[in-house]
Amino acid sequence: MFQSLMLMVICDVVVVGRTEYDRGVNTFSPEGRLFQVEYAIEAIKLGSTAIGVKTKEGVVLAVEKRITSPLLEPSSVEKIMEIDDHIGCAMSGLIADARTLVEHARVETQNHRFSYGEPMTVESTTQALCDLALRFGEGDEESMSRPFGVSLLIAGHDENGPSLYYTDPSGTFWQCNAKAIGSGSEGADSSLQEQFNKDLSLSEAETIAVSILKQVMEEKVTPNNVDIAKVAPAYHLYTPQEVEAVISRL
Amino acid sequence: MFQSLMLMVICDVVVVGRTEYDRGVNTFSPEGRLFQVEYAIEAIKLGSTAIGVKTKEGVVLAVEKRITSPLLEPSSVEKIMEIDDHIGCAMSGLIADARTLVEHARVETQNHRFSYGEPMTVESTTQALCDLALRFGEGDEESMSRPFGVSLLIAGHDENGPSLYYTDPSGTFWQCNAKAIGSGSEGADSSLQEQFNKDLSLSEAETIAVSILKQVMEEKVTPNNVDIAKVAPAYHLYTPQEVEAVISRL
Amino acid sequence: MFQSLMLMVICDVVVVGRTEYDRGVNTFSPEGRLFQVEYAIEAIKLGSTAIGVKTKEGVVLAVEKRITSPLLEPSSVEKIMEIDDHIGCAMSGLIADARTLVEHARVETQNHRFSYGEPMTVESTTQALCDLALRFGEGDEESMSRPFGVSLLIAGHDENGPSLYYTDPSGTFWQCNAKAIGSGSEGADSSLQEQFNKDLSLSEAETIAVSILKQVMEEKVTPNNVDIAKVAPAYHLYTPQEVEAVISRL
Amino acid sequence: MFQSLMLMVICDVVVVGRTEYDRGVNTFSPEGRLFQVEYAIEAIKLGSTAIGVKTKEGVVLAVEKRITSPLLEPSSVEKIMEIDDHIGCAMSGLIADARTLVEHARVETQNHRFSYGEPMTVESTTQALCDLALRFGEGDEESMSRPFGVSLLIAGHDENGPSLYYTDPSGTFWQCNAKAIGSGSEGADSSLQEQFNKDLSLSEAETIAVSILKQVMEEKVTPNNVDIAKVAPAYHLYTPQEVEAVISRL
Amino acid sequence: MFQSLMLMVICDVVVVGRTEYDRGVNTFSPEGRLFQVEYAIEAIKLGSTAIGVKTKEGVVLAVEKRITSPLLEPSSVEKIMEIDDHIGCAMSGLIADARTLVEHARVETQNHRFSYGEPMTVESTTQALCDLALRFGEGDEESMSRPFGVSLLIAGHDENGPSLYYTDPSGTFWQCNAKAIGSGSEGADSSLQEQFNKDLSLSEAETIAVSILKQVMEEKVTPNNVDIAKVAPAYHLYTPQEVEAVISRL
Amino acid sequence: MFQSLMLMVICDVVVVGRTEYDRGVNTFSPEGRLFQVEYAIEAIKLGSTAIGVKTKEGVVLAVEKRITSPLLEPSSVEKIMEIDDHIGCAMSGLIADARTLVEHARVETQNHRFSYGEPMTVESTTQALCDLALRFGEGDEESMSRPFGVSLLIAGHDENGPSLYYTDPSGTFWQCNAKAIGSGSEGADSSLQEQFNKDLSLSEAETIAVSILKQVMEEKVTPNNVDIAKVAPAYHLYTPQEVEAVISRL
Amino acid sequence: MFQSLMLMVICDVVVVGRTEYDRGVNTFSPEGRLFQVEYAIEAIKLGSTAIGVKTKEGVVLAVEKRITSPLLEPSSVEKIMEIDDHIGCAMSGLIADARTLVEHARVETQNHRFSYGEPMTVESTTQALCDLALRFGEGDEESMSRPFGVSLLIAGHDENGPSLYYTDPSGTFWQCNAKAIGSGSEGADSSLQEQFNKDLSLSEAETIAVSILKQVMEEKVTPNNVDIAKVAPAYHLYTPQEVEAVISRL
Repeated sequence: MFQSLMLMVICDVVVVGRTEYDRGVNTFSPEGRLFQVEYAIEAIKLGSTAIGVKTKEGVVLAVEKRITSPLLEPSSVEKIMEIDDHIGCAMSGLIADARTLVEHARVETQNHRFSYGEPMTVESTTQALCDLALRFGEGDEESMSRPFGVSLLIAGHDENGPSLYYTDPSGTFWQCNAKAIGSGSEGADSSLQEQFNKDLSLSEAETIAVSILKQVMEEKVTPNNVDIAKVAPAYHLYTPQEVEAVISRL
Repeated sequence: MFQSLMLMVICDVVVVGRTEYDRGVNTFSPEGRLFQVEYAIEAIKLGSTAIGVKTKEGVVLAVEKRITSPLLEPSSVEKIMEIDDHIGCAMSGLIADARTLVEHARVETQNHRFSYGEPMTVESTTQALCDLALRFGEGDEESMSRPFGVSLLIAGHDENGPSLYYTDPSGTFWQCNAKAIGSGSEGADSSLQEQFNKDLSLSEAETIAVSILKQVMEEKVTPNNVDIAKVAPAYHLYTPQEVEAVISRL
Repeated sequence: MFQSLMLMVICDVVVVGRTEYDRGVNTFSPEGRLFQVEYAIEAIKLGSTAIGVKTKEGVVLAVEKRITSPLLEPSSVEKIMEIDDHIGCAMSGLIADARTLVEHARVETQNHRFSYGEPMTVESTTQALCDLALRFGEGDEESMSRPFGVSLLIAGHDENGPSLYYTDPSGTFWQCNAKAIGSGSEGADSSLQEQFNKDLSLSEAETIAVSILKQVMEEKVTPNNVDIAKVAPAYHLYTPQEVEAVISRL
Repeated sequence: MFQSLMLMVICDVVVVGRTEYDRGVNTFSPEGRLFQVEYAIEAIKLGSTAIGVKTKEGVVLAVEKRITSPLLEPSSVEKIMEIDDHIGCAMSGLIADARTLVEHARVETQNHRFSYGEPMTVESTTQALCDLALRFGEGDEESMSRPFGVSLLIAGHDENGPSLYYTDPSGTFWQCNAKAIGSGSEGADSSLQEQFNKDLSLSEAETIAVSILKQVMEEKVTPNNVDIAKVAPAYHLYTPQEVEAVISRL
Repeated sequence: MFQSLMLMVICDVVVVGRTEYDRGVNTFSPEGRLFQVEYAIEAIKLGSTAIGVKTKEGVVLAVEKRITSPLLEPSSVEKIMEIDDHIGCAMSGLIADARTLVEHARVETQNHRFSYGEPMTVESTTQALCDLALRFGEGDEESMSRPFGVSLLIAGHDENGPSLYYTDPSGTFWQCNAKAIGSGSEGADSSLQEQFNKDLSLSEAETIAVSILKQVMEEKVTPNNVDIAKVAPAYHLYTPQEVEAVISRL
Repeated sequence: MFQSLMLMVICDVVVVGRTEYDRGVNTFSPEGRLFQVEYAIEAIKLGSTAIGVKTKEGVVLAVEKRITSPLLEPSSVEKIMEIDDHIGCAMSGLIADARTLVEHARVETQNHRFSYGEPMTVESTTQALCDLALRFGEGDEESMSRPFGVSLLIAGHDENGPSLYYTDPSGTFWQCNAKAIGSGSEGADSSLQEQFNKDLSLSEAETIAVSILKQVMEEKVTPNNVDIAKVAPAYHLYTPQEVEAVISRL
Repeated sequence: MFQSLMLMVICDVVVVGRTEYDRGVNTFSPEGRLFQVEYAIEAIKLGSTAIGVKTKEGVVLAVEKRITSPLLEPSSVEKIMEIDDHIGCAMSGLIADARTLVEHARVETQNHRFSYGEPMTVESTTQALCDLALRFGEGDEESMSRPFGVSLLIAGHDENGPSLYYTDPSGTFWQCNAKAIGSGSEGADSSLQEQFNKDLSLSEAETIAVSILKQVMEEKVTPNNVDIAKVAPAYHLYTPQEVEAVISRL
């Protein structure tokens, strides 16, 4: 009897301790961790799955769309958005946060074109997005009081050819050949590692991306609950007919 | 005896833990949730029911008005408001918050007309509303220190034809064919899914909206406790006589 | 013995929980409530009673004045104040807060007259008051760090004829035919519902308002502890002789 | 034995509850109370007693001065101060706070004279003082982070004749015929109610004020521990000889 | 056994209660007290003793200097400082705080001389010091986030002859004939009351001040651990020889 | 049984105590420690290992790259970055934080070249980085609300010849002959002390750095998971072929 | 058994109490103490030892340098720094904090030279440093959110001849003939009191300072772990050869 009571008191200490460290939105825990960033990453694990695959011809993005009601307009659930002619991105997590980041990136790429007369590189665009994401909790005009609860797959094409970047809420980014984010990312990443090779054609990449989405989604894949886009070398969001064509190839 | 005491101590821990996470108005909980947004959504579940239905001819909005005293002027309980000639909205939740959002949207649409000489699209207007809603807790001049405790159904008509948007306190929005919000939204949404089809006439949409309101309201439906508006293609709030006419068709 | 101790521990949890949610002055509780607004409404329930009655001829306001000492100058206990020639208001709650709101409204109506050469409508004036009330806790220059602890009955006369508005600390307002606020409001509202009809003369409204005040006041009604005003169509605060005349009609 | 432990736990809850609500300097408790204002009023109950009496000839102010050491210069313990030629005030509570308020009022009355070429009315001066007192905790340049811990009796003479105002830390004011503040105010107010009538001469008012002070003071009344001033129609602080003369009349 | 446990729980409540009220640096406790000011006064009770005596010829200040190490330069332990030609002050408490106040007073007196071509009065100088002391916790540019932990004896000579003021951390000041501050102030004040009379010569005042210091100091009095200054009518800090001469008269 | 309960209560006190001190991001604990800085140092202990070795010919930097997925582009995991022609740095800890510091240093060195027409010295560049790191929690425009969770090895060559600096999150820096940071730093530092001497050639330094990295890395060393750079006297990041060449020499 | 539990509960109260008072960075505890300053002084007690000795010929500073690794460049561990030609300082505590203070002092002395065409006095320079140190927690642009965790020995030479000042984190300073700071200060101060006399030559002062350092250091004294500087009348940091010469004299 008393033995149990003892254990619970220990447990109480752990919980209180953890809550204390959360307070400062952007401060380290004693183990050197940033809890708000880790919590934001949890938010993304609840999000729908998105997949990106890079080929020599260009980059393919494919996302799951969760249509919670038949009365929703599928096309208004935007999980893939254009940033500039040569850059697009797929997202997983809080959509409103993603919109803020994309809007910021659009302004940056527009300004770059205006100032320098040439498109912004994909890496610079990604860096600009991550600079904003990193500065949460700083009280800046544009930054948020919390991390952005969203991960992005940024697909682009510039003087260095096609490229695919992956960002997380800490403001860090990596360049990838292929990457999955969202609730099904673990399984999808394994499948990508098996199926990816550097000589894939764009069409093969489409097939791989959608077939892996199909595995991790609970519902049947249709043009209503999947969006596909490519940057090859310009951004293009597939029409329902084009999505249907990819699905029918599976 | 001691067994019970033990259980209560556990319960204590849970409650304290939850309260800690609330403190930062706009921060993530360890599970990646934003509690203040979830609490604001609770505020809306206490609100009166509102329904929107989109047809090819235009959009119909219908709301329940809770007249707590016979001495209240029914027309001063405004649950449907005009934003611009071609956009109106129905609301559920805190009325004072809704007024702030609508006032913001009116300024935005006015400025757009002045700057560009043409009406703002319904999506841009909705996006402008949601940008403001998203930035609660940021200390901006116009933003609130908490989420706006209101959901809106935004009905409009622009170059893309009629459209209906639904917003929530997180600053997210979706385009819908039909949608219900407020305390009776669950039942009303089910009924809408059964009765909606894309070929409804505006008149059929009126009948469906009011008949569903009737189901979820505890009182008899009268021109005093129901408001109806349409955007087809201009915003029009029904007179008591027009409301009476719809009711009499049921 | 132990049984009782158990119950008290539960009680402790509830109290601590509630106090946590208060901290953010303007944030939602898990149930979607704004506690500071609810607490401010409590402040009004402790206030003296005020009554407004709208007739076709104009609006009557009547208030109880609590003269705590015979040495107080009754006329300095102002519970009815003029906002503009055509608008007056009665208040219940914290008098100093009411003065700030009224002063704000006076500046707004003056500015409106100056800018547009015509009086501000009663609804716009009420909206301006509520905009200020809504933004408590925002750190604006004019707003308060807490809700205004006052309810107002705003009586006015404009191009739409006579009107009576009721505001609460949340920044919400309603248009009424008749309304009571303050500690005796519950009983007074019931009496108003029984006695009000749309064809009352101004003189009948005076009699009803004062006779209902008489019911809810513990002391005998005299020109010293009651103030009456009308807006018909201009604001006029009754002299002690005019108040005496109304009382003598009861 | 256990019974007692139980009772103490209850007591603990009450104390913790109360301290939580204090935190927000200017926020409501669940009962609709503003604790910081109530605590400031406690500070005044510890202060020395001050009395004001209005007559047709003018207003008399009399205060107790606590001379804690024979080495203190009695004239440097200022409990009655001039605001303008036609306005003076007596205070009880924190002297440094009172000095700030009086200094503010002096600037306001000076500015008024300069801008309009005529003296500021006593009510406007009182209102200006209370506006500053009301806005504690707002972070304004001139306002305090806590309520002003002082009550004032403001005596003045303007176009409306003599007047006496009483202010408290909440920023509320009342006009009075006679009023006592400070530690002896309860007994003094009772005596004032018995002895005051509207036809008192200024000389009778002096006698009443000082004789009541004498009742509530623990020490013998002398020109060292009592100050008297009148506004009739100009402010005049009595010399020790004039105070002695009043005392000798008792 | 259990009886003791009970008592300690009570004690716990008291301590926790007190710590809560401290948080707001400048807020009232339920009893109307300002704890930070009271705590600052505690800091002064730990300070070295300082004594001021006013005579018709001028004012004498004498202070104890605690030379904690023989390697310290005694003249660098400044407990008496000049403010202007005609004003000096002795201090007890935190020396760095006193320096800030004195520096502020020096700027004020310099500015006054520059603007008006005449010296600032002693009272105005004292008031200026106290205005700064009063506004702790206000976030002003010059004010501190806590009370100044220092008491001052301000000696001066102006058109009103010699004067001696005593200030405390609350920003209050009193004019005195003689006053002691610091750890030995209680005993020293009693001795001053016995020995002071208005007809003391400056030389007698020196003797009294230093002989009282001698009583309250634990060490032998020497020119190394005592400083003396006079304002008669100009400020003069005694040389070690002059201090030695006073000591030898005892 | 009870003995154990006792021990845990003590343990509870320690934990709660520690969490309290964390709150102020940049405040001292009772032992004179800055916890946030210590926690940030913990973050670095989790980072990949980096090594710097200074020779007379120049400085060598070598880092471990953790490639968590075969789909990641190794070259996009940048752990060595150029600051200016004559300065480069290796990092361990949070990459996004390092990018901010490096970007700051790039701007500083650019400005210096522009203003003075000559390169900034390595020490001045390091000092500029540390000035930014030191001021965390100050609310400055560029500073962070927490310490930068990164250590840098800054390699450079200026008028004083080659130099190697090591910075930590507290904003402190030291000049070194050789240094390791990150998870394997303890073992690597020991090896460096054994193998370093002042007469190493650049080529020997390469061999030492990579052979020590090999010891502390769990995986086989390849051009994919190791980066090497030198400043001799210009910054140069090794190509995969050059890295391969160094590895093959081991 | 129970007796022990009782004692621990008491202990718990004390610890919690203390943590509460820390929160306000710059506020008084009930005993009139400033905890953050006391904690900062603890940080200095952990620092390396520094010694200053004043002679008629000039001032000598000597410091212990802790070289934690043989790979560190000893000359980059700067514990003695030049402020201006005629002023230098030795430090103990947080080096990054000391650098900020020294940088501030360098700007002040430069500005003084520029504005007045003459060097700043040593006392004014020390006062400028302490003004910055005193204002921690005030939110000023240059001040820190916590006390500077450093003590300085400031050696200088101006029109008043040589002088040595000692500052602590509270912003207080004293002039000394000789002084030790840091972890070995207690023993070193005793030795200084025994060995110091006013007629020491500069050479004797060197010998005394280094011989006392030798006593308190755990390692053998070498030019690598000791720095010496003099201001006589210009600042000069000893070369390793000069340090070696002093050591060899011991």
